[in-house]
Amino acid sequence: MSNSADYDFLAGVRVVDFTQFEAGPSCTEALAWLGAEVVKVENPKTGDPGRRLRPGQPDDDPYYFQEFNANKKSITVNLKAPEGLALVKDLLRKADIAVENMAPGTIERLGLGYDEVKKINPGIIFCQVKGFGEGSPYETNLAFDMIAQAMGGTISVTGERGRQPVKPGISLGDTGTGMTMAVTILAALRKRDKSGEGCRLQVAMQDAMLHYMRTNFSTQAKSGKAVERDGTRSGGGSNAPSGLYPCAPGGPNDYVWIMTSRGNPEHWTRLCKVIGREDLVNDPRFATPALRVKNDAELDPIISAWAKSRTKFEAMKLVGGASIPAGAVLDTMELQNDKSFEERGIMQVMEHKDYPGFKMSSWPVRINGKPPRIKASPRLGEHTDDVLSNWLGLNAAAISKLKADKIAGAA
Amino acid sequence: MSNSADYDFLAGVRVVDFTQFEAGPSCTEALAWLGAEVVKVENPKTGDPGRRLRPGQPDDDPYYFQEFNANKKSITVNLKAPEGLALVKDLLRKADIAVENMAPGTIERLGLGYDEVKKINPGIIFCQVKGFGEGSPYETNLAFDMIAQAMGGTISVTGERGRQPVKPGISLGDTGTGMTMAVTILAALRKRDKSGEGCRLQVAMQDAMLHYMRTNFSTQAKSGKAVERDGTRSGGGSNAPSGLYPCAPGGPNDYVWIMTSRGNPEHWTRLCKVIGREDLVNDPRFATPALRVKNDAELDPIISAWAKSRTKFEAMKLVGGASIPAGAVLDTMELQNDKSFEERGIMQVMEHKDYPGFKMSSWPVRINGKPPRIKASPRLGEHTDDVLSNWLGLNAAAISKLKADKIAGAA
Repeated sequence: MSNSADYDFLAGVRVVDFTQFEAGPSCTEALAWLGAEVVKVENPKTGDPGRRLRPGQPDDDPYYFQEFNANKKSITVNLKAPEGLALVKDLLRKADIAVENMAPGTIERLGLGYDEVKKINPGIIFCQVKGFGEGSPYETNLAFDMIAQAMGGTISVTGERGRQPVKPGISLGDTGTGMTMAVTILAALRKRDKSGEGCRLQVAMQDAMLHYMRTNFSTQAKSGKAVERDGTRSGGGSNAPSGLYPCAPGGPNDYVWIMTSRGNPEHWTRLCKVIGREDLVNDPRFATPALRVKNDAELDPIISAWAKSRTKFEAMKLVGGASIPAGAVLDTMELQNDKSFEERGIMQVMEHKDYPGFKMSSWPVRINGKPPRIKASPRLGEHTDDVLSNWLGLNAAAISKLKADKIAGAA
Repeated sequence: MSNSADYDFLAGVRVVDFTQFEAGPSCTEALAWLGAEVVKVENPKTGDPGRRLRPGQPDDDPYYFQEFNANKKSITVNLKAPEGLALVKDLLRKADIAVENMAPGTIERLGLGYDEVKKINPGIIFCQVKGFGEGSPYETNLAFDMIAQAMGGTISVTGERGRQPVKPGISLGDTGTGMTMAVTILAALRKRDKSGEGCRLQVAMQDAMLHYMRTNFSTQAKSGKAVERDGTRSGGGSNAPSGLYPCAPGGPNDYVWIMTSRGNPEHWTRLCKVIGREDLVNDPRFATPALRVKNDAELDPIISAWAKSRTKFEAMKLVGGASIPAGAVLDTMELQNDKSFEERGIMQVMEHKDYPGFKMSSWPVRINGKPPRIKASPRLGEHTDDVLSNWLGLNAAAISKLKADKIAGAA
């Protein structure tokens, strides 16, 4: 029995995809997982720079590209040639959605800005992902994930108490931004389906970071002060015990997060029982949630002493099993090898012609019990014939001529 | 001129919202920003526990609730009374979407699980957000944001090189999960609009974290080793100079992230010029991207020496202005007071009857140039009459009786 299924939620929806690297591709990939026909328009020489992280050299990291381009198609077109530009305009005429995340001003210089495209397709949903917003003082600046995370605040709130900031180890500036755009596209599509009316959507990576920073802004509104880093304890310092406790055998990720909520005093009494210290329940130092926060420095060594003689998995089993929120800190290899993800289709193996057998995470939402089925990321230009034939109705002779003239197809 | 606008992308879409805290509310709020009618069904005594972070006591953190419940309605119903349950079933009959993120098994025990609800409304899109997936060994465990981030890997990759892990300072386990569900709901809605066919959607916070961890998995696939923390340098250690550099006057967030990409060697030569060290361009220690990574320990003090006599804003202006990716580390107060966010409608002031004047981030995607307009988060039960009248067609007498019988309305 397969652990995934084909879904056609977005069957018939056509996306012209000019995106590269991650912020844009993560957005169009979400649409592809859910059944849209997403066609990457790539330059014939090297394609999406995410295919070749060492420019001009052969692909040394196929996994990066596969992660963000599963289930898509690829067509190669020379956009510098007038015929290539005309070909892409023909695709845009037939499309529901176009998405791009080039450097500021680039798509307009190519002659494919919204003002041009809406003339030929007023119903299109035209989407742009940039580092900074139109009207921002940094509008023309370049940005990558880490720049968005610096300027969007996520770095300022991440790190150990009293030490320097660090970048969250996830590419939230990219995929986090892409998700907000994907939500908006599908809402816009519903309106377009009813009214025929298209629109322009724009998101800036800096702006999108605020959306993920909202608990911090509520903490600041209460305290009146910029939020300080405290990455080994619960946010806002309002629950104790709550945080990372080191476990055996002391490796770099041998930690368990144990959380007792002030919202549920049972967590504390249950924890005392689990660690064999029921005497603490009525200890005057720890009698209320507020006292436990105040006296956390005395509480911490008690929990740590219990945790350090157990592995993170044992600690999680005992604490989590007693209906107290608890989680072992899993590293990427433990996640990669976790059988449950595979059995549930949350990780699936991509059967790629050139790089077969790569197991990666799939779209995480299950539809009637199963996540969508993974399909290979495209080879550069793999679907040139398919798309020119099916979208534009070109015959074999016309396609051959475009290839011979180096307008479409391989370089 | 207003810096935001009313959008009706999801006009007429009805959402019954059983969510609480953040993972569920962030999902339904996204639908509300984009025009859906989202009705929170709350218990008459205290409502969503996110309204009262100290249980049983008056609300001491209205901002937390406002952040995740803008643009929604609220109706109070006693679900323990059979008449209350019947009332909610009547609402579900008229709904397009239902969303819940209660503890495992709770919604089913209330008699409102998918098997029951689909009997009365086969077209409904029934959505569940949990900590762990159905079929996971931890299926019945409790989870909060930090537990999902421990078990989903984001903590393992965050922190300083060689030091203990820390939790990213953002509630990605909550809002990050909510966004993947919102995307899927809107895709499912398109299918439902065409076929009348509903479905069940499920997402686990642990599973959703993998979606934001994908660059780490590609790094691991190349190296064959679990990804190590290196939060002050670029991911994967493949670009140098690239990382956080301390600036004047040395405060906790006086840092600038400067990035030179191996993909664009111009970044390096431009940076040498900006810092007045064109002699370094041809220095044999730094002549190639690979050498700059290898000799980063010699490069780092050179960049730091330049940065430390400048503020983060000056450094960003000079480096970013020279077309090199650069970003100052902004703290929450700097973001809150940033005029550009307000002018562009990325932050808006909520005019709430009880807590007026709170400026918060809005939906970050701009539609034809403007983000959606913020509307107040609801008071507990504020829209009970509105919804009973407009969804169910009840008259004033029927509504009064429900209130007198303590089935609906205030406790």
